[in-house]
Amino acid sequence: MTEKGEKALLPAGMVDLLPPEAAQESAAISRILDLFSACGYQRVKPPMLEFEETLFDGAGAALSQQTFRLMDPLSQRMMGLRADMTTQVVRIAATRLSGEPRPLRLCYAGQVLRVKGNQLRNDRQIAQVGAELIGSESSGADAEIIALAASALEKIGVTRLSVDIALPTLVPAIARTLGLSPSESADLREALDRKDAAAVKAISKEHGKLLSALLRAAGPVERAVAALSRLTVPEDAQEELERLLAVVERLRELKPDLRITVDPTEHRGFEYQTGVSFAFFARGVRGELGRGGRYAARAAGGCFEPATGVTLYMDSLLRALPEPDAPSRVYLPAGHDPKIATALREKGFVTLAGHDPVEEDRKEARRMACDYWLSGETLRKVEEN
Amino acid sequence: MTEKGEKALLPAGMVDLLPPEAAQESAAISRILDLFSACGYQRVKPPMLEFEETLFDGAGAALSQQTFRLMDPLSQRMMGLRADMTTQVVRIAATRLSGEPRPLRLCYAGQVLRVKGNQLRNDRQIAQVGAELIGSESSGADAEIIALAASALEKIGVTRLSVDIALPTLVPAIARTLGLSPSESADLREALDRKDAAAVKAISKEHGKLLSALLRAAGPVERAVAALSRLTVPEDAQEELERLLAVVERLRELKPDLRITVDPTEHRGFEYQTGVSFAFFARGVRGELGRGGRYAARAAGGCFEPATGVTLYMDSLLRALPEPDAPSRVYLPAGHDPKIATALREKGFVTLAGHDPVEEDRKEARRMACDYWLSGETLRKVEEN
Repeated sequence: MTEKGEKALLPAGMVDLLPPEAAQESAAISRILDLFSACGYQRVKPPMLEFEETLFDGAGAALSQQTFRLMDPLSQRMMGLRADMTTQVVRIAATRLSGEPRPLRLCYAGQVLRVKGNQLRNDRQIAQVGAELIGSESSGADAEIIALAASALEKIGVTRLSVDIALPTLVPAIARTLGLSPSESADLREALDRKDAAAVKAISKEHGKLLSALLRAAGPVERAVAALSRLTVPEDAQEELERLLAVVERLRELKPDLRITVDPTEHRGFEYQTGVSFAFFARGVRGELGRGGRYAARAAGGCFEPATGVTLYMDSLLRALPEPDAPSRVYLPAGHDPKIATALREKGFVTLAGHDPVEEDRKEARRMACDYWLSGETLRKVEEN
Repeated sequence: MTEKGEKALLPAGMVDLLPPEAAQESAAISRILDLFSACGYQRVKPPMLEFEETLFDGAGAALSQQTFRLMDPLSQRMMGLRADMTTQVVRIAATRLSGEPRPLRLCYAGQVLRVKGNQLRNDRQIAQVGAELIGSESSGADAEIIALAASALEKIGVTRLSVDIALPTLVPAIARTLGLSPSESADLREALDRKDAAAVKAISKEHGKLLSALLRAAGPVERAVAALSRLTVPEDAQEELERLLAVVERLRELKPDLRITVDPTEHRGFEYQTGVSFAFFARGVRGELGRGGRYAARAAGGCFEPATGVTLYMDSLLRALPEPDAPSRVYLPAGHDPKIATALREKGFVTLAGHDPVEEDRKEARRMACDYWLSGETLRKVEEN
């Protein structure tokens, strides 16, 4: 059977992770979660299936088109197979953990499934790891989440990491003061996305200079902060801009070596964020490693709690990781002492036990892709020079 | 909202794992997989969704009734949401890993979903962890899998562990030599399940004595082995019985302190096993912690490979674990030095960062359920005596 034929055994976008990638993914997830836990983020584990009405509540509605649906034979109600976990974590915060002190720090890891892949991401099953910080409006909370994600990515070996910081609510706040019609607003949005300074100037009338300056401010953090600090923006947008600057300042204190870029007019992919937002990249690696930002978390009684969070995508993350170190493998001939096997494993060796006598232990060790074999109580190298 | 009302948000048998259980489950899974890996079992990660025809291949057919089904909008073919992972791992062994040397050791962890719960297990989503040893007929392979699972369970803190060993193919082999009709065979099966020695004797004619002796042999390993060693069984069953004794002997060498019981006539739940089978229990804990045994793994070209494996069920396993140790939590007031925070985490503390100044750090630390707060560079206990 050809490799291609074998792969076609699985639905498009569904893959088997094989050795050593499967172990590498799982080790990376564990190490990320260990850091999240050490920073006070407590693990929660929502189920794979939920009723539609809870899964598509609030920001979850955006994923309704992307969600596999199933009839629950017990309740005769429709369930969705989760396409994201943030809505689930927010639901837990709003219900069973509503009595816990705020800010509430929660973390999670799990599989999400999507009806269709997209251009950036073919996979229809993605392992996600995330952290949510719920119940704080502080710019320190935004900085904490970004720094936490950056530290986690560095910890697992991502190099050439950068974070792009955006403020998707800034342009709408400025546009409101201009009294633009919906079609003018859309034109402005589009002109900004094209980085078309002339069109931006024409549409934004008396704020033309400001919006052009915002466009020009995008770039490495030092330059962006200097440019943004000099700007005068309408009152409605002033608080937003100050918060962005405060978040960036705190983030630079927390992670002085992190490569940060700021794009104050960027909004694509941040449609449901309500403040400072961000995406992580590793130079030379296709796709985002993760993204997140501020949002309104639906709480009990129809209220909302201020929240921010991050989701890391293990598929692109795996592409950003160095090859894992392969541990040394030792073949243990039949009749070996189990105590020696335990001692070898404690030293970091992988042991493969033989069950029946073979003609030549060394040959068998080589056949089993081992580096050593146990001869009496001595480790011997399979390939001696 | 009441606890009950909140729980009803989720479909029956679907649960949110909360702190600290979610972290405890995940830590237990990691530690089990670490041991499996150290013993040469390489991690694989099959997808949650597969086409029906691969998911229900071979032994997977048994789970067809229990499997949620979905239409794949891309291929217009039916997919199943896995109800078990063994079939998937066997598929991987038979296709993409068919060229790897045998015996092939693979391990996995993941969520499985079932259409309905049962009396023993209400949950419809269960986290499974397992190991499969494919391509060895040796009794040493059976012993290795049982010992491996026992070691993993001990490692994560399960106490009062026991394993019940069965040989579900033994009675059918004896029944074949008796030439029983299908209904007589069923009667015999039922009488054995009831441990009804008189009925067993009546049905099994000239083998009445043998089957009664098998019934009586069930129990703690020393007694069972002594009784079974004395038996003379029909030729067809002799090899089976010798293998059972060989597995038990090797297992006792590998795990001299493991509590083992043998029930040579037990077969319930082992319908798809082809040889020595087993189930793990912890005294005082409801439900099996795991089970497994020998089976025929479908290989390329319609062949079968001899295989054995084990699956551990995290829901019952969590009930068998001691309460996890809660790490000490430290509140770090706003403006703290990030380096001190890192140093504290490296010492095993959980740190919770404050983002804005508060009236009294100690009070805030208590509100956030911390044991300590950082005062300058000094850790101070929240509740001083």
